[in-house]
Amino acid sequence: MRLARIGPVGAERPAVQAADGSWRDLSGVVDDLDGTTIGPGPLEEVAAALAAGDLPQVEAGRFGPPLGRIGKIVCIGLNYRDHAAETGATVPTEPVLFMKAPDTVVGPDDEVLVPRGSTRTDWEVELAVVIGTEAAYLSSPQDAAAHIAGYAISHDVSEREFQLERGGQWDKGKNCATFNPFGPWVVTADDVPDVQDLGLRLWVNGELKQDGNTANMVFPVLEVVHYLSQFMTLYPGDVINTGTPAGVALGVPGTPYLAPGDVVEVEVDGLGRQRQTFGKA
Amino acid sequence: MRLARIGPVGAERPAVQAADGSWRDLSGVVDDLDGTTIGPGPLEEVAAALAAGDLPQVEAGRFGPPLGRIGKIVCIGLNYRDHAAETGATVPTEPVLFMKAPDTVVGPDDEVLVPRGSTRTDWEVELAVVIGTEAAYLSSPQDAAAHIAGYAISHDVSEREFQLERGGQWDKGKNCATFNPFGPWVVTADDVPDVQDLGLRLWVNGELKQDGNTANMVFPVLEVVHYLSQFMTLYPGDVINTGTPAGVALGVPGTPYLAPGDVVEVEVDGLGRQRQTFGKA
Repeated sequence: MRLARIGPVGAERPAVQAADGSWRDLSGVVDDLDGTTIGPGPLEEVAAALAAGDLPQVEAGRFGPPLGRIGKIVCIGLNYRDHAAETGATVPTEPVLFMKAPDTVVGPDDEVLVPRGSTRTDWEVELAVVIGTEAAYLSSPQDAAAHIAGYAISHDVSEREFQLERGGQWDKGKNCATFNPFGPWVVTADDVPDVQDLGLRLWVNGELKQDGNTANMVFPVLEVVHYLSQFMTLYPGDVINTGTPAGVALGVPGTPYLAPGDVVEVEVDGLGRQRQTFGKA
Repeated sequence: MRLARIGPVGAERPAVQAADGSWRDLSGVVDDLDGTTIGPGPLEEVAAALAAGDLPQVEAGRFGPPLGRIGKIVCIGLNYRDHAAETGATVPTEPVLFMKAPDTVVGPDDEVLVPRGSTRTDWEVELAVVIGTEAAYLSSPQDAAAHIAGYAISHDVSEREFQLERGGQWDKGKNCATFNPFGPWVVTADDVPDVQDLGLRLWVNGELKQDGNTANMVFPVLEVVHYLSQFMTLYPGDVINTGTPAGVALGVPGTPYLAPGDVVEVEVDGLGRQRQTFGKA
């Protein structure tokens, strides 16, 4: 299933896509799509309601983030060999971890703001994992599968000077307002045949900048979830940004960073497409 | 005012302390103490209700975290000269920033769990700042004062091997479940005469380990809030852990780290006292 939240900022309604491509209002089934409804029980109810065929249609206007009240966003750094190489880093021997605050999340096509004082605002297409059930101390990567509700696109916007040259810890360049466009929808895990074979692409002003595949992850999705669960408890409604392939501005000398007016498009196979116009904070 | 949330885990009721030391139920005034009620408007209503003198008394049983639905917890590293020195770090020239997920927060006297596989679980008494109104791009440290709702104690529990030796970024050792005891109460900013002259103390099994003062912060509270607002938007209900003074296990060679059964007590002048028994995850 494709699950989305459609409507104006702060007043999105939960929706599910029908076989004919139309979007159906889920307000009568779940209050919202969030940590309380993204687990197996409520999703079965959603599937049943969709199958029954009498959900009212909803106009596909603005897509908001497809998940409300996100608990935490855990990000994996340097998780593609080509990206580690382009940034001059060695390939990590265990996952590198940093965090974004959920308040950085905006809809997939919302405006993203270049921070004041920024000279190096950069792009990163990523596969996002949405947690469906609580996961702590999983005993194997295989056990992780049951805890994943689905997948979506995250754009992990990053300010490189803030991240790398302002006195410590990457979080400083990862948490500017609007820095995590998310969506347009969550695809439930059962509808993603092979999560380790998804193409990821990103364009700046129409020019293809990133063109990767999840097959090239250093730590595949199930290993990441298993690993994280040894260091923290993952809760329903948490999101994991699993890292970016090569092609960011940081990695290619001479590439201009993002400026107000730029348009970034972001795509992952089967997970839809984002389009952000950059503005000025 | 001293604001608390009293009751069983997940069912805490908001409360305010009366002049006679008793706790008064705020359920009739605010739904909860959180980002929607910690701002100036609702706090005026709370003050008026307290002054009217007819709030029902509530038994001071378990204190939960004095703030619900925390948006994000931003932490400042190496913010006391003596702590930077003891860990072998140079005193930072601008604030070092990392993050804890709000789901690590527990009540001030709740059990804290030593993570599985941990050999270096450490303590850190900290002054926590609670944000009362949205703050972005503040033009001066002086402007920060109006955005601070109050202060509380945070215990920034830290696993040093996870933080420093497991392949990147401190967040990995800061986000284990139960790693942020918070409270017992928030003292509103008007009732803290000088936030840069508060003693902070921490005992392990009755032995004094940390004995610092906020006068020794590298970056005082108003500078920290002003600085952070250049990199992220601070929202009502966000919390800032402002760093720890000297005396952590990491800083004193030969000091044993925490183990199940240990009792840690944490105190900041005017902000109350915490007491945690450590258990096993």
